[in-house]
Amino acid sequence: MRGEVSATARAGGGPAPLQKTMAEINVVALPGLPEIVRGDELGVLIANAVTKTIRTVNIGDIFIVAQKIVSKAEGAVVKLDEVTPSPAAEEWAAAHQKDPRVVEVIFRESRRIVRMERGIIIAETRHGFVCANAGVDASNVPAGFVTLLPPDPDASAERLRDALIGAFGRSVATIVSDSFGRPWREGVVNVALGVAGLRPLVDYRGCLDPFGRRLESTVMAIADELASAAELVMRKTAGTPVAIVRGAVEWVGEGTGRMLVRDASRDLFR
Amino acid sequence: MRGEVSATARAGGGPAPLQKTMAEINVVALPGLPEIVRGDELGVLIANAVTKTIRTVNIGDIFIVAQKIVSKAEGAVVKLDEVTPSPAAEEWAAAHQKDPRVVEVIFRESRRIVRMERGIIIAETRHGFVCANAGVDASNVPAGFVTLLPPDPDASAERLRDALIGAFGRSVATIVSDSFGRPWREGVVNVALGVAGLRPLVDYRGCLDPFGRRLESTVMAIADELASAAELVMRKTAGTPVAIVRGAVEWVGEGTGRMLVRDASRDLFR
Repeated sequence: MRGEVSATARAGGGPAPLQKTMAEINVVALPGLPEIVRGDELGVLIANAVTKTIRTVNIGDIFIVAQKIVSKAEGAVVKLDEVTPSPAAEEWAAAHQKDPRVVEVIFRESRRIVRMERGIIIAETRHGFVCANAGVDASNVPAGFVTLLPPDPDASAERLRDALIGAFGRSVATIVSDSFGRPWREGVVNVALGVAGLRPLVDYRGCLDPFGRRLESTVMAIADELASAAELVMRKTAGTPVAIVRGAVEWVGEGTGRMLVRDASRDLFR
Repeated sequence: MRGEVSATARAGGGPAPLQKTMAEINVVALPGLPEIVRGDELGVLIANAVTKTIRTVNIGDIFIVAQKIVSKAEGAVVKLDEVTPSPAAEEWAAAHQKDPRVVEVIFRESRRIVRMERGIIIAETRHGFVCANAGVDASNVPAGFVTLLPPDPDASAERLRDALIGAFGRSVATIVSDSFGRPWREGVVNVALGVAGLRPLVDYRGCLDPFGRRLESTVMAIADELASAAELVMRKTAGTPVAIVRGAVEWVGEGTGRMLVRDASRDLFR
């Protein structure tokens, strides 16, 4: 049996960077962004923050941007005082101690209710995303307001990418990201809503494994994994809604967030 | 409107590391592991590979290990020649051009079939994981064999952690990871099956956002996001089934992969 002898060379010294010749990615949160408000040119503000802090941009750097600030910049924000709840929204809200105006906004953002039980609304948005509350969210916005998902996250990602390429003259990729729950597992993870300049899915079908067997069904959702990696440094309350992944240049290419949305006709859970 | 002036300071020079004072994580694939076979002391082999290549281990380094090599080392492998399919397995296999012996193994690994349509089996394993084919997999194993999920991934993670702490004398965390599909979205992402030395869920409920609003429902599945980040460097066919995440020391603590499994009674999709 191999591996019976303990590793004898012990780790020495203090923290050391991982060796640079191996497959490696770095994920860093971008500090220095102001609080984002409607009308902000978000891409330019991100470029300015990069210039002040990280200073360099490499070809293939992937910028992951929280949906929340994209929605704020684009004005995808609703003032609850201006919302009149429908009777259905009033009824659900009363039964589950929710704000009927928020429930009304959720209904308006939904094209299909997937589940509505135990105070939880899982809805399909008009983009086709399936998520809690159709993406309507009251966190990280002033009291009395909620944010919606951006109307076209791929277009948002494309605009951000254009601004960053304009600022730095280098081809980068962008992801607009949000935290979604999942059936069967606890907790939420970040996923990619909008994508520009990146292949969101990498298809290993047809590749050979080390035994020469053809891989049959392995399509990795790279953009979602990048969004999750970014969330690890963005955190929820730290005020750093942008992260940069460096070292993932092989996935640069063409693609959209739309490609990550499974069509209802192919879905077993709608 | 802010941000109208383009960033004028352009990125200079060649590739540069990201500035080290910011929130940052590094993810590196571990080279140098041999092909794993039944009986291998996987933790010691990983420690030896670290000693040969990366050389140092930091307190709080998180080792993400592909389920496939854990199953191989533990002998969670089935020789298909020794499987006699049941009539139900024969019937499903014939209808969907599958190997009836593989279908039989999937049935044996399942405690509940969640969906069985269009040639796809989504099953709840005895651990409570819900995934395609109950985790039974023919890739990256010799022809005529399939791997099962490890019988107790948390115990596997704990053993790997013990071996690494034994080798390096520093507290590290471990995750046993596999690629799972998700409803509603295309592609698979890596998730954490077994966890040791790590808080798999980080609960932001009760924290304040920058507007002083209490976050209500944000529990991040950190272990799953770490598994996804690791997959980005592990890749499917590159033969590097171990990755190390450095810089995430704040999540070191107590926890299990079991904590990520939503109880069926709380699940809207079973």
